[in-house]
Amino acid sequence: MASVGVTGGEPVVKAVALCGSLRKASFNRGLIRAAMKICKEESGIEIEYLEVDPLPMLNTDLETPNGGFPPVVEAFRRKILHSDCILFASPEYNYSIAAPLKNAIDWASRPPNVFAGKAAAIMSAGGGFGGGLAQFHLRQVGVFLDLHFVNKPGVHVNAFQPPPKFNEDGDLIDQQTYQNLKLLLLSLTNLSLRLQSNSK
Amino acid sequence: MASVGVTGGEPVVKAVALCGSLRKASFNRGLIRAAMKICKEESGIEIEYLEVDPLPMLNTDLETPNGGFPPVVEAFRRKILHSDCILFASPEYNYSIAAPLKNAIDWASRPPNVFAGKAAAIMSAGGGFGGGLAQFHLRQVGVFLDLHFVNKPGVHVNAFQPPPKFNEDGDLIDQQTYQNLKLLLLSLTNLSLRLQSNSK
Amino acid sequence: MASVGVTGGEPVVKAVALCGSLRKASFNRGLIRAAMKICKEESGIEIEYLEVDPLPMLNTDLETPNGGFPPVVEAFRRKILHSDCILFASPEYNYSIAAPLKNAIDWASRPPNVFAGKAAAIMSAGGGFGGGLAQFHLRQVGVFLDLHFVNKPGVHVNAFQPPPKFNEDGDLIDQQTYQNLKLLLLSLTNLSLRLQSNSK
Amino acid sequence: MASVGVTGGEPVVKAVALCGSLRKASFNRGLIRAAMKICKEESGIEIEYLEVDPLPMLNTDLETPNGGFPPVVEAFRRKILHSDCILFASPEYNYSIAAPLKNAIDWASRPPNVFAGKAAAIMSAGGGFGGGLAQFHLRQVGVFLDLHFVNKPGVHVNAFQPPPKFNEDGDLIDQQTYQNLKLLLLSLTNLSLRLQSNSK
Repeated sequence: MASVGVTGGEPVVKAVALCGSLRKASFNRGLIRAAMKICKEESGIEIEYLEVDPLPMLNTDLETPNGGFPPVVEAFRRKILHSDCILFASPEYNYSIAAPLKNAIDWASRPPNVFAGKAAAIMSAGGGFGGGLAQFHLRQVGVFLDLHFVNKPGVHVNAFQPPPKFNEDGDLIDQQTYQNLKLLLLSLTNLSLRLQSNSK
Repeated sequence: MASVGVTGGEPVVKAVALCGSLRKASFNRGLIRAAMKICKEESGIEIEYLEVDPLPMLNTDLETPNGGFPPVVEAFRRKILHSDCILFASPEYNYSIAAPLKNAIDWASRPPNVFAGKAAAIMSAGGGFGGGLAQFHLRQVGVFLDLHFVNKPGVHVNAFQPPPKFNEDGDLIDQQTYQNLKLLLLSLTNLSLRLQSNSK
Repeated sequence: MASVGVTGGEPVVKAVALCGSLRKASFNRGLIRAAMKICKEESGIEIEYLEVDPLPMLNTDLETPNGGFPPVVEAFRRKILHSDCILFASPEYNYSIAAPLKNAIDWASRPPNVFAGKAAAIMSAGGGFGGGLAQFHLRQVGVFLDLHFVNKPGVHVNAFQPPPKFNEDGDLIDQQTYQNLKLLLLSLTNLSLRLQSNSK
Repeated sequence: MASVGVTGGEPVVKAVALCGSLRKASFNRGLIRAAMKICKEESGIEIEYLEVDPLPMLNTDLETPNGGFPPVVEAFRRKILHSDCILFASPEYNYSIAAPLKNAIDWASRPPNVFAGKAAAIMSAGGGFGGGLAQFHLRQVGVFLDLHFVNKPGVHVNAFQPPPKFNEDGDLIDQQTYQNLKLLLLSLTNLSLRLQSNSK
């Protein structure tokens, strides 16, 4: 696991962010941008956004006999391995997580599973329950991945109920959600540090 | 919905089969081949296997402004629309369905959802619970799709426990699973016909 | 399975309703009362409300060696056996169905499972997603019970968001939910009849 | 949260164990007895078994206006509050957790939720997947409870497959499961200590 960095005496948790939508104006990518903005203002956690678009559709026939991966998969896996924790954002498609996110997760979980033991948090935007049902599928997936998810606060934004939560570019404009995101990042930072502590 | 065909006086239910694995020697594709073989021997249902490999990764930016889809997606959707019922086979990745299957489903569910009102059945092969956990995620997805799943028998084959269930080519060689598949197809046929009956 | 009754030439589907809350002013029992009122006005389905309060906490040591049940359990099971379909109403406790409902279901599922093959519908009222997460747990339970659930419409009422949905006595006063309930009952009636049809 | 005790210089994590079965010869209670035996041999964690039998069926009308609970509920809640972590054992009924366990959980979660922030582990014995499906329902419940579950090892014992895992009294006699339980308790102890660490 990555060692927690230190900047000016403060520990800095390194998160990677994955988005389940490939759409340009994706609300879920908007949530990640908002989270990255919060991190720049507050110390304690920094986020690197990882593109999932370049990954091929999962097919283990693409792995080399000695356990190697296509270069784009290898690079993606290395970024996750060297992070302290994961920030997921996913639209809900058919009451579950979107295929591009599942695809990225499945590649990263191939042995050796690069998620193992890390902290994680989920946020989503969508209609209905704001992606809330997809979040529980992701949590079940996370048990196999050996991820430890933050339980609270729940960040599932109903993007289609007034008042508007995002502008035309998919940028978050809702202050309540913004505050909620801050709490989520605080929880994620805190859980990451506790999981990395020496328990003896 | 497709009207049930008639061959020699017998109604014939038309199923399409989708597989979540892109691997050549996939056990799950082996289950579909076994199911197709059963259908040739028994009347009442016929299965068309639909490739999911050619579908692009889901991105609704690829849809045209008037609701059109890329040609390969359009062709895939039309096959499902003209079927009576769906037969799913999926490996379990990280306690959920495989990304290629989720991707195919998400494309087919885009409005107008071409699955609506049809009967469906699930079978899976894998380690652990034989894909049983993934099946429940697929069932939750099916609620949004408005699919009606067969409840019994459960077909979740532990492919790695003795005796061997598949040969090197991924062909099913286990007689008990074969009998179980027969019952599943019978249930699927029966449920399809009942759902299409005029309830008045 | 119960044979569908006939009243004045019209088939009448017999439903039993189970409520997961024991509270006097329960919103979920209010949903059942509203459904019963709708049935009196419209033909096609009639609902009998079954109390779950008298059932002891599940303990299979209470069964007699020859498969008998305590009298109150026996009576409860017989009512379900002689129904055509089931209408569930449950508050959500901790993202799942309430214990009193799970208890009633577990008793009714003891061999021979009296739910087998019937149609079912779910409605719920609560905070957050209006009980929507509990509904999916109930659907998974329903696979073992061999129930066939109506997929649409979803009836999950957020009881604490304005405008008020229930009065002080727990009676439904929201017209939109009332219309939604009508559609749910229509779907349940329709699915029951189709499942009972002779598929040949 | 309970402060971690110290015995002879070693920290001792205090767990409470809850069982979903009321049966005398319950396999799941057998798992708890085995876990308690392990704890006596190894230092680091001690387990107190909490009976759920005396709890009334959940009915919030039984709470007093100022937030008080029936004495038997109050005593049960206090035990959980003063523990460091929770060990659940539950049979699977109808693909979900048993009603007596859900009932105990629902009482303990009433505000203020006495589970909040603690570590937890699940074990189960049963047919089919050995209770594995019920475990995932319990994990979803645990998100609301703000519990942090151990991910590995999975302890879901198929009690009906040879070789025999339990004797007539419901005592665990399978050495592999016994070793697996040891690892589960080690994980639970470790996660408890890390969650209680000062993250700064």
